[in-house]
Amino acid sequence: MKKAFQDFYAEKYSHCYGCGKNNPNGHQLKSYWDGKNTIARFTPKNEFSGGVPDHVYGGMIASLLDCHGTASAAAFAHQSLDREMGDQGEPIRYVTGSLKIDFLRPTPMGNELTIQGKLINLEGRKAFIELSLSANGIECAKAEMLAIQFKAS
Amino acid sequence: MKKAFQDFYAEKYSHCYGCGKNNPNGHQLKSYWDGKNTIARFTPKNEFSGGVPDHVYGGMIASLLDCHGTASAAAFAHQSLDREMGDQGEPIRYVTGSLKIDFLRPTPMGNELTIQGKLINLEGRKAFIELSLSANGIECAKAEMLAIQFKAS
Repeated sequence: MKKAFQDFYAEKYSHCYGCGKNNPNGHQLKSYWDGKNTIARFTPKNEFSGGVPDHVYGGMIASLLDCHGTASAAAFAHQSLDREMGDQGEPIRYVTGSLKIDFLRPTPMGNELTIQGKLINLEGRKAFIELSLSANGIECAKAEMLAIQFKAS
Repeated sequence: MKKAFQDFYAEKYSHCYGCGKNNPNGHQLKSYWDGKNTIARFTPKNEFSGGVPDHVYGGMIASLLDCHGTASAAAFAHQSLDREMGDQGEPIRYVTGSLKIDFLRPTPMGNELTIQGKLINLEGRKAFIELSLSANGIECAKAEMLAIQFKAS
C-alpha cells in the first residue's frame, strides 16, 4: 500500500491525535499526492456531530484541515528540493503558525470528506498552503495556512 | 451548580462533540461569564497529543476556541437585549462563519487550559469575538471569530 506523508514522520513525532500513526485512539489522517496538489480522505464517525445532529462539528473540520495542511507543507518542501519524504536526508516537518478557516456551509455527516491542499508559496521556514474540504463534491470549508518548519529528526 | 451557556442550548441542538451536553463521547466544554468577558476551562486527556508527545494537538485547540466562541456569541447576544440565556424568549444561537487561529507557542499537555472570549462587535446576525487560550497563565493561541446567528428553537 502506498505510504502517506504522515507515515514518513519520525517515530517520536508520530503521536498526533489527528494524524499520528503512533496514536491508536486518534484519527490517523493520511495525506497523499494528487497530481501537483495533495489530498486526504476521511469519514467522521457519527459521534463527531455538531450541535445540529447530522452535521460534522467545527473542531473536526479544523483538525482535518490542520493535519492535512502541515503534512502537505512537508511534502511540498521536500519536492522543492527534489527530495522524497523518507529519503536519507534530514526530514523537513512543519507546525501550524496560523490557520484561517471559512465555514461555507454545513458539512453533512455520513460521507467521506475530501481534503485538498495547494501550495501557494515557500519562503524560508514558512509555507503558505491553501486548503479545501468537500463532501459529495461540494466545498463546505476552505482555509489558508501558514506552516512553519521545525526540527523533527 | 451554575449552568453553563451550553446547558441552555435546545435539546435537539445539544449534540456537538465539542460542547453538547447530549453527546456522551464528546468534550462537553462549559462556558461561563467572567465579568464582562467569558471563560471556559478544560484539561485535555493525554491522547489529544500533537505530533510532539507533550503538546496539545492543533485540532483540540481549534475545537475549544470554536465551541467557546459560538457559546460566547450567544451569551453576548442575549445580554445585548437585556435577556438571560434560557429565558422564555426565542433562543439566540450561533454557528461559526470563520475562525482565524494564531498558534503562538506549543500548548503543554497535562494542564488545565483557560479559554477566554471578548465581544468585539454585534452587527445584525453577525458577532465578532476575540478568543484566547492559555496554559499556566501563558497565552498559547489566540483567534478571531465571525459567528452567525441561526434559528435553533
